[in-house]
Amino acid sequence: MQHFDSDYMEGAHPKILQRLIETNMEKTTGYGTDEYCKCAADKIRVACDCPEAQVYFLSGGTQTNATVIDALLRTYEGVIAAKTGHISSHEAGAIEAGGHKVLELEGNDGKVSSVEIESYLKTFYADGNHEHMVAPGMVYISQPTEYGTLYTKEELKKISQICNNYQIPLFLDGARLGYALVAEGTDVTLSDIARYCDVFYIGGTKVGALFGEAVVITPKAKIGHFFTIMKQHGALLAKGRILGIQFDCLFTDNLYINIAENAIHMASKLREGLRRKGYTFFIESPTNQIFVILENQKMKQLSENVTFGFWEKLDDEHTVVRFATSWATAEKDIDELIELL
Amino acid sequence: MQHFDSDYMEGAHPKILQRLIETNMEKTTGYGTDEYCKCAADKIRVACDCPEAQVYFLSGGTQTNATVIDALLRTYEGVIAAKTGHISSHEAGAIEAGGHKVLELEGNDGKVSSVEIESYLKTFYADGNHEHMVAPGMVYISQPTEYGTLYTKEELKKISQICNNYQIPLFLDGARLGYALVAEGTDVTLSDIARYCDVFYIGGTKVGALFGEAVVITPKAKIGHFFTIMKQHGALLAKGRILGIQFDCLFTDNLYINIAENAIHMASKLREGLRRKGYTFFIESPTNQIFVILENQKMKQLSENVTFGFWEKLDDEHTVVRFATSWATAEKDIDELIELL
Amino acid sequence: MQHFDSDYMEGAHPKILQRLIETNMEKTTGYGTDEYCKCAADKIRVACDCPEAQVYFLSGGTQTNATVIDALLRTYEGVIAAKTGHISSHEAGAIEAGGHKVLELEGNDGKVSSVEIESYLKTFYADGNHEHMVAPGMVYISQPTEYGTLYTKEELKKISQICNNYQIPLFLDGARLGYALVAEGTDVTLSDIARYCDVFYIGGTKVGALFGEAVVITPKAKIGHFFTIMKQHGALLAKGRILGIQFDCLFTDNLYINIAENAIHMASKLREGLRRKGYTFFIESPTNQIFVILENQKMKQLSENVTFGFWEKLDDEHTVVRFATSWATAEKDIDELIELL
Amino acid sequence: MQHFDSDYMEGAHPKILQRLIETNMEKTTGYGTDEYCKCAADKIRVACDCPEAQVYFLSGGTQTNATVIDALLRTYEGVIAAKTGHISSHEAGAIEAGGHKVLELEGNDGKVSSVEIESYLKTFYADGNHEHMVAPGMVYISQPTEYGTLYTKEELKKISQICNNYQIPLFLDGARLGYALVAEGTDVTLSDIARYCDVFYIGGTKVGALFGEAVVITPKAKIGHFFTIMKQHGALLAKGRILGIQFDCLFTDNLYINIAENAIHMASKLREGLRRKGYTFFIESPTNQIFVILENQKMKQLSENVTFGFWEKLDDEHTVVRFATSWATAEKDIDELIELL
Repeated sequence: MQHFDSDYMEGAHPKILQRLIETNMEKTTGYGTDEYCKCAADKIRVACDCPEAQVYFLSGGTQTNATVIDALLRTYEGVIAAKTGHISSHEAGAIEAGGHKVLELEGNDGKVSSVEIESYLKTFYADGNHEHMVAPGMVYISQPTEYGTLYTKEELKKISQICNNYQIPLFLDGARLGYALVAEGTDVTLSDIARYCDVFYIGGTKVGALFGEAVVITPKAKIGHFFTIMKQHGALLAKGRILGIQFDCLFTDNLYINIAENAIHMASKLREGLRRKGYTFFIESPTNQIFVILENQKMKQLSENVTFGFWEKLDDEHTVVRFATSWATAEKDIDELIELL
Repeated sequence: MQHFDSDYMEGAHPKILQRLIETNMEKTTGYGTDEYCKCAADKIRVACDCPEAQVYFLSGGTQTNATVIDALLRTYEGVIAAKTGHISSHEAGAIEAGGHKVLELEGNDGKVSSVEIESYLKTFYADGNHEHMVAPGMVYISQPTEYGTLYTKEELKKISQICNNYQIPLFLDGARLGYALVAEGTDVTLSDIARYCDVFYIGGTKVGALFGEAVVITPKAKIGHFFTIMKQHGALLAKGRILGIQFDCLFTDNLYINIAENAIHMASKLREGLRRKGYTFFIESPTNQIFVILENQKMKQLSENVTFGFWEKLDDEHTVVRFATSWATAEKDIDELIELL
Repeated sequence: MQHFDSDYMEGAHPKILQRLIETNMEKTTGYGTDEYCKCAADKIRVACDCPEAQVYFLSGGTQTNATVIDALLRTYEGVIAAKTGHISSHEAGAIEAGGHKVLELEGNDGKVSSVEIESYLKTFYADGNHEHMVAPGMVYISQPTEYGTLYTKEELKKISQICNNYQIPLFLDGARLGYALVAEGTDVTLSDIARYCDVFYIGGTKVGALFGEAVVITPKAKIGHFFTIMKQHGALLAKGRILGIQFDCLFTDNLYINIAENAIHMASKLREGLRRKGYTFFIESPTNQIFVILENQKMKQLSENVTFGFWEKLDDEHTVVRFATSWATAEKDIDELIELL
Repeated sequence: MQHFDSDYMEGAHPKILQRLIETNMEKTTGYGTDEYCKCAADKIRVACDCPEAQVYFLSGGTQTNATVIDALLRTYEGVIAAKTGHISSHEAGAIEAGGHKVLELEGNDGKVSSVEIESYLKTFYADGNHEHMVAPGMVYISQPTEYGTLYTKEELKKISQICNNYQIPLFLDGARLGYALVAEGTDVTLSDIARYCDVFYIGGTKVGALFGEAVVITPKAKIGHFFTIMKQHGALLAKGRILGIQFDCLFTDNLYINIAENAIHMASKLREGLRRKGYTFFIESPTNQIFVILENQKMKQLSENVTFGFWEKLDDEHTVVRFATSWATAEKDIDELIELL
């Protein structure tokens, strides 16, 4: 049986486990105040080319989104996001639980454009009743998006400019950021992200860690008391070092980038195989998620030997399914999958 | 340098790391739906003698308290707790962030008595204005408490009866539950807790795990949609199996109990040493936390070689400090500490 | 200058003021526990043909929506509503402030259909990931809608059946309910609303009162502790009788219905006048709000003598504007407006 | 039967009703943007000697407290208040519903002292764990307090200084402010309050209005988007002018002060009567609430002819009861009450 459901199906990269073993019996202070967290934060600051950034480690994506958004918004503000954004549809109301509305834009292929954002903001402030409405207080985007698509540097820059014009922060959800950074054809680097976003996070859970996300708050954003805000959100791990050690490892010797490349290579191989066999893609995605259209008959047959993500019904006879590769995907498994298709 | 600040200073019990390594490259489904979580839940149900319990795994104590309390209360209800309870003072307002007041009772040595709880409830309902006040919707206790003290079986039973009479659930915070279960002189077992409480959690973070708490919801409590509530609270780990594997390991061959015993033995040894040397205890605590009164001069001197918890100022010349042992405390470290005292 | 901006531009119906004067120096108990509130509630129960209903009086529409929705939902649930619904767009995030997502449906002319609701619910429960999403916990509709349109009895019945099938309550926002009840061609009575909805409110602010909305909770819905929930929402008026007296007056000798008829007659007259003069309607609305398309030039000219609601830009040369009549609109003002058009 | 339960038992001062009648059929814009609100705000700014203050009108005390506190605090902050403060105990968790903890101080006779506040703040910031705790973000006091007691100018000044030192705003709940301003022996004026507090409100509901509270935000506090925050809290009245007209009337020809004096005179007369008859006071309160100790036998007998507030049980044979006078209390009713005592 082959498994391509998602990119969080395995444990951690062996080097991470190795470091956890090596450091296991050391005694350190808690809550991320230890040396491993400091060291990991330093390496991340270097990698982002953002020496003044605050860096914090949290456990998972939904938690990180809810905590950051709550920290950035005032009570009467909401967050602009694509309708397909993770916070819009797949976080069980975590943003609303913090009291904030997600202001949903249609978007395209999972992305929102600077034009769409600007149009929303203009229309909002032109409306004579806007004081009766939720004020747009920030913009949320993901790189890659839920559909595996990517913003270009130019797109990021433009969105950033709109946000600057309206003086609202830009937050980037990087749950799968590694896979974006090494995607073929991308021109966006980690330092570009630090330049154009106010806050973003570097996903560990889906890129080699047991769990963990590294939040980077650039000097543009200035969030006070983030430690307390994390605590209030139940997002402060007692043994914070477990996160620090993992990110220290991921940002040593370029590990984060190197292992992300495997996912991209495996995805490319699979994409090519699918194309060769005449399959149609639902969307052209350059990262580790492949959305392909299957005849229902074929899908059923395939599911006897492979697990994958059921994405959406296309019509009565076709379904969109998702295959996800990861840092851990083995080439032989891709070969086997292509054969089965 | 010796470290006795807390019980979360080391990593995990080696057997847990071993299991994480062995299972690392397996592919499993996410969010706690995997076989390791199921297996761990089964073992916990057996250990609690509560075959119908729901069992969920969360990341940390504050998160668990906030999630469970939010799930148990209606919007207009609050939670009764000791003024010194963790939710009252050391969770940065996580309960209030969920919209609920902590209804604080004075308590004694960290404990609240059934008499105090009943008196609060009686007075509340006798007050003609009680509909203008926060309705007491549940009771929160900890075993052991923040002061390391323990409820007896009789005390638990009585509190349980009051809760039954007023039809409000009883929730027990077991962040350090292991150390309570093996304390000298305790008559409270895990199955007693499952019998007298509606919901409780078994702490892993402080008792051998890298991180993790196992929530046990007994059939008396019936919480629907707890999975979604966890997600909304950012408390649902993508690689849920990391928690399942740890608890599976802790509840195999009695590991949880066995390693807790080490902490208790080391604490006993330290307590005896302190007594022998003429120190006065701030409180008589039978678990892994020792609260002792030090002259400020002595405290300062000791802090050159030992780290410990500063608890509270007693008077101008004395301070209460805390030494905590854990599953990982080595006998030679206790010997060295006693020598230093 | 003529004013047709809205239906809350005048004070109260003179009979209401008269009753406030007559009762002014009486001493009564507070918070709606007085005899006027009881009497008003009784009359409303009779008018709704719902003898077991709970009736409460609140101050305004947003407050009522937020309080009722918070009372009906569990933390992890959201409320289904039209995208154009008042709670979706014009309440500054009051629903989200209570922790709940508004699950927006496209709708048509301000209405959501039973087919659209059922489709949403079916799709939701068919989605394998629905436990990661906000659970639909109730349905919100308005009668009339934001566009002045009306549900028919058959439509209400069907929506009610879907809600019953999925065991979620149906809540009807009746901020302008009076104008719906007497609209030409409607077949929906107050008792129909009580039969098909679980909770609804009868708007006073826009139909003759100084302020105030009467919430009717039918026996199907069973909301406990609504008094306390009101208090928690800042929705419990100390001198509750001010609301009771107003609704007592509105439900004596059919006043509520009689004065609503004036608004409808005046709207009909205005509609006819507009039609005669060749204006195009943006939407056919049978109640007291008229949405008409004006050339920008004409609009500018008109605004020198009349105030009205700017609704939305239609194209570069046309704008949709709203004229609202009310219980207090005088025939001569309509005549003058038609002349000016 | 005589009624001394509270100060919100009658309607409004006749002059207010008169103004409501006179203005009733005028058409004005909504939500407090009308001329009456502007005019009332101007008069209040003059009365407070605070020409730059923002002034807003809300419906009731709990609503006002919840809205202001939510506007002043960041998510991770709480509000310092006396344990007996209205927000601590009698608002059904309205503050917690906004996500904030009430940080309760013991206080004395309903008041908190600058010493107590400073000590709390000092201890808080001295605590090494304070980042795990709710940050004190503002101070809440009432004038008069729940016990009818008053702060002196010197006391207010000192509290104000502490707040300045810690850079947190001071908010004063003036639900009964009129009665404080004219109390015998007080040296605190409205302009003193505007000088020493950052935000406060002038209570109308209990001092002559049908309902309504006027929030005064001094330039020190700077609250942006308060209109939207009010809307989000359900605290924005559509016919806002109803509040504007009432406060315009109350601040014309010194009405607010004049009618408050009646309550104080009547309270003084009653107090003297009670003293003459040998009754013991539970607390010395110089305003319109009198707390007296009655033998239970006497209390029972009295309750056949008089309604009053049951405050608290003193011992098995005595009860503390409250008599409240108001702007509307008639001298003959006081005479009759004294006779009955």
